[in-house]
Amino acid sequence: MTVLVVRGDREFLVEPGEDFGTDLGVLDVPEDVEPGDTITTHLDEPFEVRRLRSPDLFHHMERTGAPMMPRDIGLLVGHVGVQSGDRVLDAGTGTGVLSAYLGRMGAEVTTFERKAEFAEVARENMELAGVADRVDVNSGDVLDAIDERDDFGEFDLLTLDTQDAPDVVERAPDLLADGGFVAVYSPFVENTREVVEAARETGLSNVESQETIQREMDFDDRGSRPSTRGVGHTGYLTFARNV
Amino acid sequence: MTVLVVRGDREFLVEPGEDFGTDLGVLDVPEDVEPGDTITTHLDEPFEVRRLRSPDLFHHMERTGAPMMPRDIGLLVGHVGVQSGDRVLDAGTGTGVLSAYLGRMGAEVTTFERKAEFAEVARENMELAGVADRVDVNSGDVLDAIDERDDFGEFDLLTLDTQDAPDVVERAPDLLADGGFVAVYSPFVENTREVVEAARETGLSNVESQETIQREMDFDDRGSRPSTRGVGHTGYLTFARNV
Amino acid sequence: MTVLVVRGDREFLVEPGEDFGTDLGVLDVPEDVEPGDTITTHLDEPFEVRRLRSPDLFHHMERTGAPMMPRDIGLLVGHVGVQSGDRVLDAGTGTGVLSAYLGRMGAEVTTFERKAEFAEVARENMELAGVADRVDVNSGDVLDAIDERDDFGEFDLLTLDTQDAPDVVERAPDLLADGGFVAVYSPFVENTREVVEAARETGLSNVESQETIQREMDFDDRGSRPSTRGVGHTGYLTFARNV
Amino acid sequence: MTVLVVRGDREFLVEPGEDFGTDLGVLDVPEDVEPGDTITTHLDEPFEVRRLRSPDLFHHMERTGAPMMPRDIGLLVGHVGVQSGDRVLDAGTGTGVLSAYLGRMGAEVTTFERKAEFAEVARENMELAGVADRVDVNSGDVLDAIDERDDFGEFDLLTLDTQDAPDVVERAPDLLADGGFVAVYSPFVENTREVVEAARETGLSNVESQETIQREMDFDDRGSRPSTRGVGHTGYLTFARNV
Repeated sequence: MTVLVVRGDREFLVEPGEDFGTDLGVLDVPEDVEPGDTITTHLDEPFEVRRLRSPDLFHHMERTGAPMMPRDIGLLVGHVGVQSGDRVLDAGTGTGVLSAYLGRMGAEVTTFERKAEFAEVARENMELAGVADRVDVNSGDVLDAIDERDDFGEFDLLTLDTQDAPDVVERAPDLLADGGFVAVYSPFVENTREVVEAARETGLSNVESQETIQREMDFDDRGSRPSTRGVGHTGYLTFARNV
Repeated sequence: MTVLVVRGDREFLVEPGEDFGTDLGVLDVPEDVEPGDTITTHLDEPFEVRRLRSPDLFHHMERTGAPMMPRDIGLLVGHVGVQSGDRVLDAGTGTGVLSAYLGRMGAEVTTFERKAEFAEVARENMELAGVADRVDVNSGDVLDAIDERDDFGEFDLLTLDTQDAPDVVERAPDLLADGGFVAVYSPFVENTREVVEAARETGLSNVESQETIQREMDFDDRGSRPSTRGVGHTGYLTFARNV
Repeated sequence: MTVLVVRGDREFLVEPGEDFGTDLGVLDVPEDVEPGDTITTHLDEPFEVRRLRSPDLFHHMERTGAPMMPRDIGLLVGHVGVQSGDRVLDAGTGTGVLSAYLGRMGAEVTTFERKAEFAEVARENMELAGVADRVDVNSGDVLDAIDERDDFGEFDLLTLDTQDAPDVVERAPDLLADGGFVAVYSPFVENTREVVEAARETGLSNVESQETIQREMDFDDRGSRPSTRGVGHTGYLTFARNV
Repeated sequence: MTVLVVRGDREFLVEPGEDFGTDLGVLDVPEDVEPGDTITTHLDEPFEVRRLRSPDLFHHMERTGAPMMPRDIGLLVGHVGVQSGDRVLDAGTGTGVLSAYLGRMGAEVTTFERKAEFAEVARENMELAGVADRVDVNSGDVLDAIDERDDFGEFDLLTLDTQDAPDVVERAPDLLADGGFVAVYSPFVENTREVVEAARETGLSNVESQETIQREMDFDDRGSRPSTRGVGHTGYLTFARNV
């Protein structure tokens, strides 16, 4: 199991048994290293050992594009109520952050990534996240797979972060269990509108598209206020339910 | 296992084996009823049987106050990266919606509710949610329990929706595993500021307080725009990490 | 000069010399009535006399549709820096609220309203606002007028709240003084995009489209927070400058 | 009258009759220079002559601190409905941007700035804005002036951007005409709350405090969306009316 070794701003992913070189000396990581341990370099500099949580994965996974932000993952997860044992069909794996979060919540994820080299990186990221057994990263187009495979069965969730999301949404009633949700992330108004229209036309219910603005609050000696920095748009989240 | 029987806008929670009276006749719910089944009343009116998902629980749980909204649950879950097996200490159970969502994501939750009658309702809600084995609803004050019990062990998450959250935050470093998060929901600026100050003083890191504005998008024949209805403030979410 | 007579929630527009019946008796309004006076009904019930301000006009003008909100008028006025003596060409008069506000800031406004009966109401509203000498309400299409009239001269501002705003924006370089602004109010993303594209294509500068979310703050005994009611979308404001 | 001479990104303030050196040669500005003229340097490089509008003043005034933004000026102006002839009492002159905008809308402004050297700069800014005859910049504390002067008369508006705004708000009923408004700009929640409480206690009506979030829209080949940059908090605007 990969762990984090941390000291102040220094954060490194290390494997049990590994020799890892830092600017404070070499860490000889024990085979039986455990979160909570303190290990020291050959120069006697201590590092704390920490278990990787999902936000750590978000920062340490190798990226193959702009990943979905934890904020949007959270909004998605809250709206559909992800639960352990959910069967999820995902398209547009990318870095795999959403798949990793879902897998860690106990979902079984079948995800499709068109670019073979991105799918390969995503597979490594699932290893790092400890969810390789729950997240099946496929290289290819989800629409082809839907047409070709007859072993898909019913899914509880369909999560989409791809250009052709409207085409997949049209298939949602055949893919989703009764009560299942489709959730689509799309950056532009035009994409979002197409998704909404596809969801309405295919007879899904509770079609709803949301935009979210999040601001940090600043609390200092002068007083309390929303940050003067502002937080920009990420994307729209559209939801529909097979009921 | 409680299931939903649904027909259009009619949604009822029923138990296997139960006789359930509706305005369309009596449903004789089979003992072996399964999600996906269609069952009919004695007047031959069909209802669909559906598995309860977390959003259904949100709507059907008995409420003992204003529950945390799925949006805020999602933002919390996304920020801290809830994962199966997480040990969570929660205070301010209320209706138990947050506990139910967390339990369904595979977390083990120990939650405290001051009012005994609310705790009792929350326990029933955990039964309904199918997480009674994962969510331990305690009647009492979490601060007393922290002082008295020495079997708590380390938690991955501390989630608070109580007036005295700042006092609990002060104890966070003793309660949280290295890398664990505290998350506090508070409706007013003043409460939020106190939480932030407690988190800073007790030496937690990555202290961050967020406000979120969510708007539905309207897509109709005239065009696309944010809803003219507007969505109001719910509360601030403050996070800090034990690192 | 029309004045307001006010008592608690009762607010009436009255003319000097008028006999005005209220539920508290008849007001015999003196010919020389002045803001600041107190006048009494024949039942000896007092009313305060108040000068009409623009927000009072907003509430008391006869409406022929949804008028532009003071918030959006303000954002427009702030962005272009309306000043006394500005020559304004306005299309989509409607109720005439924008024209009245601009006229009261000392601008000379030529405004076009397609529906003759709406233009007639707007003219009466300009009388009420005391700006009939500064706001020229025309019944007809602004594009026809642009084509037909050669006495328009240069305008400092072009303000548009019409469906065909993109067509008018195309003519802006011929209509505006150097440094002059065009400002367009449009409710939907699609309209707004067309306006932006027209402004870019016609060679205007500083093209900028804004969306504004406004929330009231609640301050009560429990604390301070943004209102739980929320304020919805009104419209987009697009600006461009002839430089 | 100061005018702008402009060429692409080059913008200079020049006086009639002035010799002005640029990197493209010396401009010999004619005594009878007029907006709309083109004048050339001794190297025959042309510059356009433009009349200064308020947004130009915002960019070219000498600053003595962070001035109120045009957005907030606009929201203030829209809410209270500034009109030609309004008598305004202003405190916290600063750079004088609000006073200049108000003066240009035809208001008569009496403004107070505590720091003598800032007041001096503001006076020069009023000259530049062409409103020196309408904006009377006083060096000193507005509360002292209220106590000492008995020639103030009634104001239509009271505009405040100072730390001691709550103390001035307490005096508002004595300073404002019936129907007049007080408007306060304050950056923090705590200040804003104090202003609201003072307004309520002193018996003003329609007390309302607003927060405004503004976002630019991006329209490009990929689609339409709110900007990913985000626009931060500036301040709260609180309004109350003397009715």
